[in-house]
Amino acid sequence: MTEPGPDRARIRFHPDGSAPREVRVPAGTTLFDAASWNGIAVDSTCGGHGTCKKCLMRVIEGDVPVSRVDPRAFTPEQLRAGWRLACRAAAEQDLVVEVPPLVTRPKAATVGVGRQVVLRPAVQKRCVTLPEPSLADQRSDLERLRAALDDLEFSADLRAVRNLSRAMRAADGVVTAVIVDDVLVDVEPGDTGARCYALAFDLGTTTVVATLLDLVTGTPAAVASVLNPQQPHGADVITRISATMMDPSALDRLTALAHSALDGLAGEVCAEAGVDRREVYEIALAGNATMVHLALGLDPEPLGVAPFVMAGREFPGLTARDLGVQVHPGARAYVFPALGAYVGGDVVAGALASGMDRDRRIRLFIDIGTNCEIVLAAGDRLLATAAPAGPAFEGAAIRCGMRAAPGAIEGVKISEDDVLLDVIGDVEPLGLAGSGLVDAVAALVSTGLVDASGRLATADDPGVPPGLAARLRTVGEERAFVLHAGPQHDLCLFQRDIRELQFAKAAIATGWSLLLEEAGLTQDDVAQVVLAGSFGSYLSASAAVRIGLVPGVSLLRIVSAGNVAGEGAKMALLSVRERAAARALLEEVRYVELSDRPDFNDRFVDRLAF
Amino acid sequence: MTEPGPDRARIRFHPDGSAPREVRVPAGTTLFDAASWNGIAVDSTCGGHGTCKKCLMRVIEGDVPVSRVDPRAFTPEQLRAGWRLACRAAAEQDLVVEVPPLVTRPKAATVGVGRQVVLRPAVQKRCVTLPEPSLADQRSDLERLRAALDDLEFSADLRAVRNLSRAMRAADGVVTAVIVDDVLVDVEPGDTGARCYALAFDLGTTTVVATLLDLVTGTPAAVASVLNPQQPHGADVITRISATMMDPSALDRLTALAHSALDGLAGEVCAEAGVDRREVYEIALAGNATMVHLALGLDPEPLGVAPFVMAGREFPGLTARDLGVQVHPGARAYVFPALGAYVGGDVVAGALASGMDRDRRIRLFIDIGTNCEIVLAAGDRLLATAAPAGPAFEGAAIRCGMRAAPGAIEGVKISEDDVLLDVIGDVEPLGLAGSGLVDAVAALVSTGLVDASGRLATADDPGVPPGLAARLRTVGEERAFVLHAGPQHDLCLFQRDIRELQFAKAAIATGWSLLLEEAGLTQDDVAQVVLAGSFGSYLSASAAVRIGLVPGVSLLRIVSAGNVAGEGAKMALLSVRERAAARALLEEVRYVELSDRPDFNDRFVDRLAF
Repeated sequence: MTEPGPDRARIRFHPDGSAPREVRVPAGTTLFDAASWNGIAVDSTCGGHGTCKKCLMRVIEGDVPVSRVDPRAFTPEQLRAGWRLACRAAAEQDLVVEVPPLVTRPKAATVGVGRQVVLRPAVQKRCVTLPEPSLADQRSDLERLRAALDDLEFSADLRAVRNLSRAMRAADGVVTAVIVDDVLVDVEPGDTGARCYALAFDLGTTTVVATLLDLVTGTPAAVASVLNPQQPHGADVITRISATMMDPSALDRLTALAHSALDGLAGEVCAEAGVDRREVYEIALAGNATMVHLALGLDPEPLGVAPFVMAGREFPGLTARDLGVQVHPGARAYVFPALGAYVGGDVVAGALASGMDRDRRIRLFIDIGTNCEIVLAAGDRLLATAAPAGPAFEGAAIRCGMRAAPGAIEGVKISEDDVLLDVIGDVEPLGLAGSGLVDAVAALVSTGLVDASGRLATADDPGVPPGLAARLRTVGEERAFVLHAGPQHDLCLFQRDIRELQFAKAAIATGWSLLLEEAGLTQDDVAQVVLAGSFGSYLSASAAVRIGLVPGVSLLRIVSAGNVAGEGAKMALLSVRERAAARALLEEVRYVELSDRPDFNDRFVDRLAF
Repeated sequence: MTEPGPDRARIRFHPDGSAPREVRVPAGTTLFDAASWNGIAVDSTCGGHGTCKKCLMRVIEGDVPVSRVDPRAFTPEQLRAGWRLACRAAAEQDLVVEVPPLVTRPKAATVGVGRQVVLRPAVQKRCVTLPEPSLADQRSDLERLRAALDDLEFSADLRAVRNLSRAMRAADGVVTAVIVDDVLVDVEPGDTGARCYALAFDLGTTTVVATLLDLVTGTPAAVASVLNPQQPHGADVITRISATMMDPSALDRLTALAHSALDGLAGEVCAEAGVDRREVYEIALAGNATMVHLALGLDPEPLGVAPFVMAGREFPGLTARDLGVQVHPGARAYVFPALGAYVGGDVVAGALASGMDRDRRIRLFIDIGTNCEIVLAAGDRLLATAAPAGPAFEGAAIRCGMRAAPGAIEGVKISEDDVLLDVIGDVEPLGLAGSGLVDAVAALVSTGLVDASGRLATADDPGVPPGLAARLRTVGEERAFVLHAGPQHDLCLFQRDIRELQFAKAAIATGWSLLLEEAGLTQDDVAQVVLAGSFGSYLSASAAVRIGLVPGVSLLRIVSAGNVAGEGAKMALLSVRERAAARALLEEVRYVELSDRPDFNDRFVDRLAF
């Protein structure tokens, strides 16, 4: 497992003044990326476009062909000596590379789980002065621009060509070309390089979040969120898929609702930051497969029934218009690719933001929700699966459940004679959030009021602390525990609610335990557990361990990573290298389908106990 | 001049049973193309997609790398022996190649000036049966399709992905993928391979012609034409450019008019042939630079003033929608690239259709109109220029001039005592078409009524045939010749009209004579003169020679090629190889600007004499 595969290259970096570092990267990765990803600082001001000619490295063992740009940066002697521009030098074989002392620091931003991203957006603004045409130089406007940007290869939007001629003549040949990926989307008169924005969307089933990013500085300019307006058509992905199956017009309606949410947020963040919508040249979107299908107008039905097939895993070449977002008319859209119908682009984005691919430690990434996605990184191997956790965590199946909104109990402590509640917004408790549910059940297990089989005690059971006995009731036929005696009615946790959580945690634990087994590991090997998603942020690590939702590791090893999907979307906008890393993740992760495993039910039953 | 340049490869073909043939082609040309272009028959049923595996050839000298598809067609021994699929074998160096006996004949169509075009449209319909997904095979629909079409690399329109899922499920996995160039534009349920159409447009300043092509057979399904509705904004390109300069809203209006003409014709030909607009997957357009700029909404002003600069020479990646043509919503558009502001895509298309690049003879291509485009092919060299002929040929500057429409005199014969007129539509003559003007002046020169300086005789000049004297009049201050005595008024050719033609022919003759001089040739070296455009079809070769409009070669060497621009557009739709040839033409032709030549005026005066 430590040998590089045929598609990996081993690079030994010798940075000036510090110890050599050996890294392994997918073959074809540039030396610049390989160094940046592994924290080895490389000089660069252009972000890897091959124009600043600062990212010098010397290949001392192995071979890297001379790139088109190298001869502009080095003498023939230097080229023979192995000097290359790191941003243009692809490692196709094992190499030993010398890194000269650092002169400057590349522009970078901190995003995701403490990730430093060197800025290299897909959006480039390049200001050039075009020479005036003459009878001796009758090149077309576009040829003139191409010659001035001869380090780039791009196709041109018709709109950009229209504007090019006007811009050239309006500003005496000084124009700013706007290139997204390899498409010229606009040409603006004068130097507009200081204004360059992009929009990152986290399109959740429940909540949609938009972040306006200033691509010049790499920092957010404004953030806004809104409840997903598709909610009236179903609280979770399955009910929304069902909605499209029952009504042929529902897909169009759900697509329009997604578009309106995205476009509304775009307007909101632009207004807040004083940015013209036309200054937004790219958008990125992370969402689960169903949300992405609905947003793109793709029939989600096959996602909802076995064998759970997507229309496509990735959708290159999309425009912002395809997602209903009215920003620059030529703006492109990057949608995170999905691993499977139930390990969507949101998980890929989250795994990217958590650096699941950058770490040699054994780590588990768990995004808890109605559908729970699990990624296991174990050395060079990446495994992923989805566990059907059911609606326990969204509050839908819990009698007093609610979303994590003001009034929701998100934490519960139970002592010998009292119950302490953590309520969002410090108001009278209205219901139980998913994190509160886990806390409550964990506390009940700790105090012995819920036994290993998940059975809730009754008031007259032996060993029930007298201070809590009054809270143990029977409502109708069903046992219940009073969390909060309200002025109008009491907030109760019912036996059935405990069962819901029990099934959910069993499904999740079956998921990660099967992944560990696939990798020949046990839970003791796990170095870190990353709890993702907004639910993960609220979840108490000790409660999660207590009920067996996550592996029983030291609490210090459990990290709440927050909204990692949104962070991943930001990273994709800040650096095309991160997109390449997301793409590589897609290639490297093996998806393990649980639903057809003959041993799934046995494992599940094993994991039911608290 | 006979040595292959660095970008040319020399291929010696040894066809089974016939004499070896040596050809020279741009480096990178496939052996399939090199053979087809040079009339060497090659087996193929797939048109060069690498799927039929019939175009076998054996490289016996020189080296051609093994392609991705070769190992499917040959054993390792055969590969070592030099066997390759010709459609995938690019000639990057000089080669000697054995061509086995022919088994089948590739599907081909005759277009252009007797050109045989092997069908290889950019539009491909491929019917495949996709295996049903299962839990063991959860590939997305798109991955499933890509696997079934693994000899192709394509990106996918969002619309095509939407339809893919529906089509797969509607027809038990039997679907037809529609790919244009390298874009999947649609997926249709079942096998729709028999219905596949494209539209060729010749967008002329005066007339717009559309041909609906059946891409399965390579034959036209319907043809229609319409007068260019931009005409009220100006009869020629200069007046239309002026219109946009005087009124800022005129460009949008002219663009909309071009779109309406193209879309109207699209509807007409589809209706006539019983073809659904959605069965048209590509359009091709040949037009002069101004017509193309106006149709694409590009500001034409820089085309109208020195130094005559285009917005772009080529516009890849266009859609039919960009040209206002409502056919299949994913339909692509190919617009012929232009050499210069006055040697537009129509000339490139015409030169392609005339095979100007395929011939080692010395040939002149002359497209006569308000602007006269001239291409000289001399061995490996191609030179082009534009001569400002003025409006004489369009009839606009000629007092009794008119377009070649019913009532127009298109031929004139003058004997000692009479004048014989050829009138379009056999009706009472209404005016003089351009070809009639040339005929009339040539006849007057022959009879001595116009002298070498261009002066028209008067009735009392010595030597005037008595039978014609009555036709020589003075109207006002000006001399005139009565062509036809009408019931209401007479049709006269005035001295000033003769001067207009004299200036036009001098400009044109200066053009071709300077091109010949650039190539170190004289008019005696010219093996063929191709007269292009509808005007060229009507022109009498002898009259054209008599007045010095074309070089004084044997009349047998003067060919009227008709609407070659439209033929070029058809060729581009029938074969991507022809597009590659058009692109190569662009690279190979050197444009010679006349307007800044210090010797232009002297040459012009030299050429004025009849």
